[in-house]
Amino acid sequence: MISSVQAPHPLSPLHANEVYRASQTLLQHLRCAKDQVRFKVIDLAEPPKHLCLIYLYENGPVPDRKARIYFHRKNTTTLSVAIVNITRSAVEKDYDVPDAQGAVDWVEYELVHNACLEHPDVKAEIAKLKLPPNAKVLNDPWAYGTDDRNERRRLFQCYMYAALSDDPEANHYSIPLPLAPVFDAHTLELVALECLPMGETAELDPETEPWEPVKPVEYSAGILGPDAFRKDVKPLQVSQPQGPSFMITDHYIEWQKWSFILGWTLREGPVLHDIKYDNRSLFYRVSMSEMTVPYGDPRSPYHRKQAFDLGDSGFGLTSNTLSLGCDCLGHIAYFNGIRTSPDGLPVTMPNVVCMHEVDDGIGWKHTNFRNGKTSVVRDRKLVIQCTATVANYEYILAFVLDQAANLHIELRATGIVSTMPIRPHTNVPWGTVVAPGVLAVNHQHLFCARIDPFLDGGRENTIVHEDCIPVPQDSSHNPSGCAFKVHTTPITKPGGYDLDLAKNRTYKILNEARINPISGQVVGYKLHPIPSQMLMMGAETFNYRRGVFATKPIWVTKYRDDELWAAGEFTNQSREDTGLARWAARGEGVRNEDVVLWHSFGVMHVTRPEDFPVMPNEKMSMVLKPVSFFELNPSNDVPRSNQQDNQSTLHQRAAYQVCRVGPI
Amino acid sequence: MISSVQAPHPLSPLHANEVYRASQTLLQHLRCAKDQVRFKVIDLAEPPKHLCLIYLYENGPVPDRKARIYFHRKNTTTLSVAIVNITRSAVEKDYDVPDAQGAVDWVEYELVHNACLEHPDVKAEIAKLKLPPNAKVLNDPWAYGTDDRNERRRLFQCYMYAALSDDPEANHYSIPLPLAPVFDAHTLELVALECLPMGETAELDPETEPWEPVKPVEYSAGILGPDAFRKDVKPLQVSQPQGPSFMITDHYIEWQKWSFILGWTLREGPVLHDIKYDNRSLFYRVSMSEMTVPYGDPRSPYHRKQAFDLGDSGFGLTSNTLSLGCDCLGHIAYFNGIRTSPDGLPVTMPNVVCMHEVDDGIGWKHTNFRNGKTSVVRDRKLVIQCTATVANYEYILAFVLDQAANLHIELRATGIVSTMPIRPHTNVPWGTVVAPGVLAVNHQHLFCARIDPFLDGGRENTIVHEDCIPVPQDSSHNPSGCAFKVHTTPITKPGGYDLDLAKNRTYKILNEARINPISGQVVGYKLHPIPSQMLMMGAETFNYRRGVFATKPIWVTKYRDDELWAAGEFTNQSREDTGLARWAARGEGVRNEDVVLWHSFGVMHVTRPEDFPVMPNEKMSMVLKPVSFFELNPSNDVPRSNQQDNQSTLHQRAAYQVCRVGPI
Repeated sequence: MISSVQAPHPLSPLHANEVYRASQTLLQHLRCAKDQVRFKVIDLAEPPKHLCLIYLYENGPVPDRKARIYFHRKNTTTLSVAIVNITRSAVEKDYDVPDAQGAVDWVEYELVHNACLEHPDVKAEIAKLKLPPNAKVLNDPWAYGTDDRNERRRLFQCYMYAALSDDPEANHYSIPLPLAPVFDAHTLELVALECLPMGETAELDPETEPWEPVKPVEYSAGILGPDAFRKDVKPLQVSQPQGPSFMITDHYIEWQKWSFILGWTLREGPVLHDIKYDNRSLFYRVSMSEMTVPYGDPRSPYHRKQAFDLGDSGFGLTSNTLSLGCDCLGHIAYFNGIRTSPDGLPVTMPNVVCMHEVDDGIGWKHTNFRNGKTSVVRDRKLVIQCTATVANYEYILAFVLDQAANLHIELRATGIVSTMPIRPHTNVPWGTVVAPGVLAVNHQHLFCARIDPFLDGGRENTIVHEDCIPVPQDSSHNPSGCAFKVHTTPITKPGGYDLDLAKNRTYKILNEARINPISGQVVGYKLHPIPSQMLMMGAETFNYRRGVFATKPIWVTKYRDDELWAAGEFTNQSREDTGLARWAARGEGVRNEDVVLWHSFGVMHVTRPEDFPVMPNEKMSMVLKPVSFFELNPSNDVPRSNQQDNQSTLHQRAAYQVCRVGPI
Repeated sequence: MISSVQAPHPLSPLHANEVYRASQTLLQHLRCAKDQVRFKVIDLAEPPKHLCLIYLYENGPVPDRKARIYFHRKNTTTLSVAIVNITRSAVEKDYDVPDAQGAVDWVEYELVHNACLEHPDVKAEIAKLKLPPNAKVLNDPWAYGTDDRNERRRLFQCYMYAALSDDPEANHYSIPLPLAPVFDAHTLELVALECLPMGETAELDPETEPWEPVKPVEYSAGILGPDAFRKDVKPLQVSQPQGPSFMITDHYIEWQKWSFILGWTLREGPVLHDIKYDNRSLFYRVSMSEMTVPYGDPRSPYHRKQAFDLGDSGFGLTSNTLSLGCDCLGHIAYFNGIRTSPDGLPVTMPNVVCMHEVDDGIGWKHTNFRNGKTSVVRDRKLVIQCTATVANYEYILAFVLDQAANLHIELRATGIVSTMPIRPHTNVPWGTVVAPGVLAVNHQHLFCARIDPFLDGGRENTIVHEDCIPVPQDSSHNPSGCAFKVHTTPITKPGGYDLDLAKNRTYKILNEARINPISGQVVGYKLHPIPSQMLMMGAETFNYRRGVFATKPIWVTKYRDDELWAAGEFTNQSREDTGLARWAARGEGVRNEDVVLWHSFGVMHVTRPEDFPVMPNEKMSMVLKPVSFFELNPSNDVPRSNQQDNQSTLHQRAAYQVCRVGPI
């Protein structure tokens, strides 16, 4: 079915033929044969905001389509970047970044993985473990991390495991092996055959001891067998007999009064652009920007474990192909992604984003107690979701719109915790034994969401924080002492800011040029944040220097094109965060300016046996809510809930008659 | 259908014939005719815990069924209390509480309401407003609050409104009138004809000005008319073709591996008793205990506004009759409640609690990136829910169980904000103008949940808090500075305790007698709290003295029978909180004792026009999660999500072909 042929929206993800054209334009420009270059990433380079706004709101010309390409000239160790104008078949920028490591790509990942398994020294070390004959050894090459300012090699630390079954879902994370060789991704040389500590300190066993057999803890239905499952979960199905309430036109989505462009990048996964409610602009761009996972274990090599799963890997690149009946329930629309092959050919990633409606209980309700008359509106939501699998772990990212004009950003952390070997019958202060011989180290997951507002069509916005403060008791104006006031503080300097629960500190985005005719207040949206413990490591640590974005919950920066990634462009083996704090240090004015609001949040994961083999999801949710943006409840016009549409069923059951307690 | 006849479970709510027997036993005991007494409340008086545990776990005798009765001898002004042994037809206690006011009952509510409307002084004042001829004047009698230690009358403040339509859902809260007469509920005398301030200070207009006509903001579908509604919300239906996964036997509920007794009281609404997972005891009793709503407006009479909607009214007594297709979606079981008539006759309150299953997205997921094999378990939940309508406002309370052995307590705040008149084109610092002439004052909603643990069958439990604390950098043991540790502090003294976000302070319930064989740690459940601004008013205020429970997020007390209500037994016009802080002041040991954990939480409501006429729900959610209680993920045995059971449908859409951007 082909319903139309048209130019791509300037903010829609790259299409397959655009990826192809970008790579070929670059190869021509470089005068390279395709086998001289390895393409790592080809992603949309968004048009400058001012051009895009002129196109969107002033009938201006369509901005050129451009790609950002990360590539690697074979036989060099340098990452290269190009900006290719696809519309004009021209390379606009082409430069090397010799002092940075690019994200992990699947090609080198496999090369390192295989080099590790095949290396004789690794094999010799494995042999000492005297694994059973059916054991299959595997490894996960990890982004190396940083503990040396002078390290310039491209390194991977290969954490090793054994599986005792050929089942495709055998849980090798339940058998972590006590070695973690380090390989150079360019030379594929073994750099260090690091062994892993088995007790509280970093001290290693003098000799590698044979593996002490344990039964792995499995999640595979094939291994567990049909009798292992509970029998009383009855099917629960969602149907929409009249179809969904959304409309999809390429990447332009309309749902209820919302509209937006559904973007997607290899780095961020789904991105919402040009978000409107009731035809009023709210946000220019909303995205998950970055995340980092520092581990609190000082024993080498664990001290280096600090993944940046957007910058090092990419939520888009690692996104699952979603499948009907598993990832969502109901009527589901899927969206594909496109990545590049090492040769620069487009590769379709099927169903990396799904979209569907859910019912989330009661949206609002009121009963007139005088007569029992009730109005109920259900909390229908639109969920745009992806799952990123970063080796052992899963992140489920969702943007959720509701009928009351709230925009939710949700993250579920699930998957398999990163496991380490531990000597039997041992406990260490760095984590919890989650299965026999298996330590799960305590760690933080610290994310950063980026909110680029365009409130009511104004590029000039202001971020304020509001505190609720008691008014001092005073016999004339506050005799009972009950009074409190809302104090508003506009943020005039870019930088990192704190929450303050004791003051109910709330951050709001305002368009000071627009006044709500009902309240007389400036129109705004407020952030309901996720109050979190921030990055725990001190300012002198690499953890901190690489992840400054995660040290403050709120950041405010002046907008600049391409400043999308909270920890900077290159996070893999980074020595410092080149993102938020640097941009803030420019000290530009941010009141009534084109301003970006960032929210860093996360979860401290003190591990539990209950998190193994696969952990029940840990859900975090923030919300952007209108404040004096609308004149009344935006969902006042949602049809009232009724049985004709909802077709709920009544649970019939035996009436119990309690025996009379005797005559009175 | 009558499937069996049996004695009621000792923890099940009072049955109709028990209410009848209790009232008749009391009347006989008092030697009163039924018209000499007004019954206010007849609720289950739970058996002492030790007797109940012997019954439940040691095959002991069935404890006697008892009722707690609040009643009022007509022609007196004193509240009386009785404990009636229903099983033995005996009154065990019968005493007056002359210094306390009981909860509001519907009889006096209506008497006051009518007295207000009929009083000539009130009518004369209303006449000055020159309301249009079709205006219908209404009033909501409010629990008076407290601003005088010496006040002993039973007072109601009647906030008055006008409706301009006969529609049964006409929104009179959109036309608040500037007077609030105070009536004595015993004498029905007008105590004060208070007028309401129209500007920033408490100063009143010298003369009551005529009402300035405005158009009320309506939510009634009848008034709005069919054209006012959005047309694009397509039905979304939930079906369970094989029926629900729960089993109901009277009030004993089984769902998946959970079991519990579903209790219900007029004061608390639904209560969960004897909660088990996989046949291991978790909690003896979990309930919503109390809440208070102080308003931050110092202008008389608003300074007294501080409802306690459990103690003053009752979440059970004010519970809505729920209806199919409105309050829940899917396959729904309903439970009735029983209240007493003023004469002591049982009155059935139909469908005050509903129970159903929901799908809440992905429960856990892992994809083996090596081969793309994926296991997904859906997050099926069991929701036990009620809606309390307390005059203008609604609270939706839900206990939610999931398959990973987590117990969630959720509250949605919705309904219509309490509205006050305001002079046109005026703003005041105490709230927001949410509609023309309508001020919604800023306020807090502060709740307290009560968690009475019985972890793994042990009555002796310990509450600890765990802090995540950085380890100082140290060249030998923490050279990189990344280390942090979990510090555990057992709570040995009862009292109020703080959260500490900077330390990720987490409260856990432990049974120190049981060790998890995998982790080697003590079995426990942790509380994921709702971090909230606590009560804002200072220690000298009545707000504080009446609601001490709301000044600390965490409370720990030694268990005593009947200590169920966080602010004490009598909150209406209370002068002080006789609950948590008093019980804590006993200073009993709480480590390895029968201990109760309380969580106070809430929301600061800075009002918005978007909250009017009915506010979109504001949801709060806490979770109790196992920590080293189980040996692995408790939901590892949930059947994997599959399309055969889920029957999701694919959204088919036109494929867009983007025009080629030209030959390369």
